[in-house]
Amino acid sequence: MSELTIWTLDWVPQGPRGFVRDLRLRWACEEAGLPYKVQTIPFDDRETNHLARQPFGQVPFLSDGELQLFESGACLIHLAHQSDQLMPKDAAGQAHTLQWVFAALNSIEMVSVPWWFLTISGNRDNELTGWVDKRLTQLEAVLSQRDWLAGDRFTVADLLMADVLRIPQVRAVGHRPASEAYVVRLTERPAFRKAHADQIAHFELADKKRA
Amino acid sequence: MSELTIWTLDWVPQGPRGFVRDLRLRWACEEAGLPYKVQTIPFDDRETNHLARQPFGQVPFLSDGELQLFESGACLIHLAHQSDQLMPKDAAGQAHTLQWVFAALNSIEMVSVPWWFLTISGNRDNELTGWVDKRLTQLEAVLSQRDWLAGDRFTVADLLMADVLRIPQVRAVGHRPASEAYVVRLTERPAFRKAHADQIAHFELADKKRA
Repeated sequence: MSELTIWTLDWVPQGPRGFVRDLRLRWACEEAGLPYKVQTIPFDDRETNHLARQPFGQVPFLSDGELQLFESGACLIHLAHQSDQLMPKDAAGQAHTLQWVFAALNSIEMVSVPWWFLTISGNRDNELTGWVDKRLTQLEAVLSQRDWLAGDRFTVADLLMADVLRIPQVRAVGHRPASEAYVVRLTERPAFRKAHADQIAHFELADKKRA
Repeated sequence: MSELTIWTLDWVPQGPRGFVRDLRLRWACEEAGLPYKVQTIPFDDRETNHLARQPFGQVPFLSDGELQLFESGACLIHLAHQSDQLMPKDAAGQAHTLQWVFAALNSIEMVSVPWWFLTISGNRDNELTGWVDKRLTQLEAVLSQRDWLAGDRFTVADLLMADVLRIPQVRAVGHRPASEAYVVRLTERPAFRKAHADQIAHFELADKKRA
């Protein structure tokens, strides 16, 4: 029996609430009915005190008994091996789930996150705009043809891709009805709604403790 | 028995030669002694004719009998399951290998590639410079403490991280002796040298056919 703990920050400003990546792991656990605890590291100390566990000073990381893991993609695949709800059991289904988890992180987010970072740095018409537009158009073509990325069913690849696409600035790039419907459909799932509400409540409780 | 085919482009200009990502898969196969073929798609048609197999118009992709896979990270993990040379057999060793494969792609390359793209677009002092510098410094701290990223031995995570770090512009950011020694050590491996030489020869042969 696994003993899952999702590690996140004890507090963040309003802006990132609802988007801190611990939500990816909460969502996966909620989909699978896997019990988990949430523990925190101090926001004020985030880039120094947990570098032994997370060398890039980021959250989330996951502990499962003795095992400690960082990188949300690796944590999601670890969880997916614990539940048929998150990934098919056959080798091809697992390989295609892994493929689309990497695609979400290395073909879409590799462009969308730096692009988003440049736009919020005040550089709205930046050199990455054409690239992000191209990637989202290519993904729209995929999502126009099918409901799920891998194995003709919900997997952690959909969970992750929806989380990458739901950033408001990314969602606002162009008119892409299939991608928009996909994000709406995924974020209406009860497991997403619970994970999202729990993250918001977690940081609101921290506000009260700080007050 | 697997029947591996690595798909790449039939020709590329001089600039990317030695850096096209089919090298990652060639290198893994060479480390593991896995037999493979190389097949090509036309450079001039790269963004239209293979979108059914690779929706982002990129190389490499891998076929293994009936299975087709894209995303170099997913392909490397697929190969790693076929050889002890590429990944340990124990669950923790495999989880940590996967963690560092994701770290190479989503913590380092997610910053380094867009940063590199901005620099070659003529925007040398761009808003991503601080971020790439920070990530490379954090990785230098890791590589100052140990020789390998996962499982205290060579894995596909080292192969991939070295391939991410060896881009000349990335290698030239700051003075990071542990990272530099790591790149030198990894790229001196016979399997890298063979994979690199084979890629160069592949494109040189294409020049002759075009001439």
